[in-house]
Amino acid sequence: MDSAVLLDILGNENRRRILRLLSHKPCYVTEISEYLGVSPKAVIDHLRKLEEAGLVESRTDDQRRKYFNISRNLRLEVDVSPYEFDMKSAYPASPSLDVSTCQYLSLNVQYGNQPDGREAEDDTETVSEAEAGEIATLAEELNCLEDLKSELSLAQRWVHGRITNVLDQLGEEVDENGQNRIRAEILAALAAGAETVRDVSRETDAPEHIVERHLTSMSERGIVKDNGGNWTLSG
Amino acid sequence: MDSAVLLDILGNENRRRILRLLSHKPCYVTEISEYLGVSPKAVIDHLRKLEEAGLVESRTDDQRRKYFNISRNLRLEVDVSPYEFDMKSAYPASPSLDVSTCQYLSLNVQYGNQPDGREAEDDTETVSEAEAGEIATLAEELNCLEDLKSELSLAQRWVHGRITNVLDQLGEEVDENGQNRIRAEILAALAAGAETVRDVSRETDAPEHIVERHLTSMSERGIVKDNGGNWTLSG
Repeated sequence: MDSAVLLDILGNENRRRILRLLSHKPCYVTEISEYLGVSPKAVIDHLRKLEEAGLVESRTDDQRRKYFNISRNLRLEVDVSPYEFDMKSAYPASPSLDVSTCQYLSLNVQYGNQPDGREAEDDTETVSEAEAGEIATLAEELNCLEDLKSELSLAQRWVHGRITNVLDQLGEEVDENGQNRIRAEILAALAAGAETVRDVSRETDAPEHIVERHLTSMSERGIVKDNGGNWTLSG
Repeated sequence: MDSAVLLDILGNENRRRILRLLSHKPCYVTEISEYLGVSPKAVIDHLRKLEEAGLVESRTDDQRRKYFNISRNLRLEVDVSPYEFDMKSAYPASPSLDVSTCQYLSLNVQYGNQPDGREAEDDTETVSEAEAGEIATLAEELNCLEDLKSELSLAQRWVHGRITNVLDQLGEEVDENGQNRIRAEILAALAAGAETVRDVSRETDAPEHIVERHLTSMSERGIVKDNGGNWTLSG
């Protein structure tokens, strides 16, 4: 989903309250209206926008009354700094994703089993010993995952702060009329192994003539070197 | 900063465009107005809201003309799932934070040096060999940090998906009238070592009488055990 659409949707207090309510349990329009103290008409309007964005969906119960629930797993990340305004929204990664292929990151969690698609239990049935064991394992996994989620969030904030620091430091060395950010990106692309103007342009998402202008200007100051069209860092 | 205030601010396309513009370089009102094709009056109104939220700040240049820049590092995370609507905003963690204390997470990056607060270089001066080396090191670090940021984001999406899966699975076992989420949280709190109703209530942010009701109902089904006020998982 487009991050801008998502921010437009979430930029409304009543829509956020509807989502919070639905995350606790599926609701009828009348329930939402009473809980929020908002007219059913206004609730229906918000629900329509949430449905159009694919965030909620409606079903009908045995009495053919329509109820609503959140239909989608979604994550939105926004980073703001003097050098950055970055919005990203994404569906959850597949549970079978192999996180161990990450280069800079290791996760020390047990990877749990996939759901086995078994039928739901009767709500009041006594559980067997094996089921109780499975529930305990799931509860432990949930506990680990929630701790890991906090650690990842902390790590993201640490990285965000470090990136700003590095850009501050690079800015002191290479800035020219506030063109710090693009220059830093060009240097990072060279550090990652990009050599030609075209490579760097693709890495940095900047037009080739802009990349070329910065490379030339930085080579005049001895920051980068041009080896016949193959650019490298001087240091 | 309050996540709700931040979402209200970001829920406007023109304010997002202003932030994107300012993340590239500090700007005068007239520049922003021309770039956005929006009247200076409307731009000033948006800037006022952004200033009140502490996201941008203004300075005056040598000719006493006012210009604006982003003043704050900030990160916003929103998680949406059938069980969750969670918004979190935070400043970057301190660069000196010891990420190695994380229990479930290891980061394989070199921790760079702190900024040394040196004066900015003249924009056109040639850099020394030592400076070129420092620039290359910074560019490499920036490159690593950006890769790490992507990996963390992927890991967060993976965790988000896993948590939803575990809640789905737990729901099959312990749900009673759509009270899945709170029950899962109670079980996770027990798995984390909470024993008394008070402990669990604090961990889960739910009132004690609600926690007690769920514990009692789950003990009747053999999911948890009451050992004289100390609760444990049966499995």
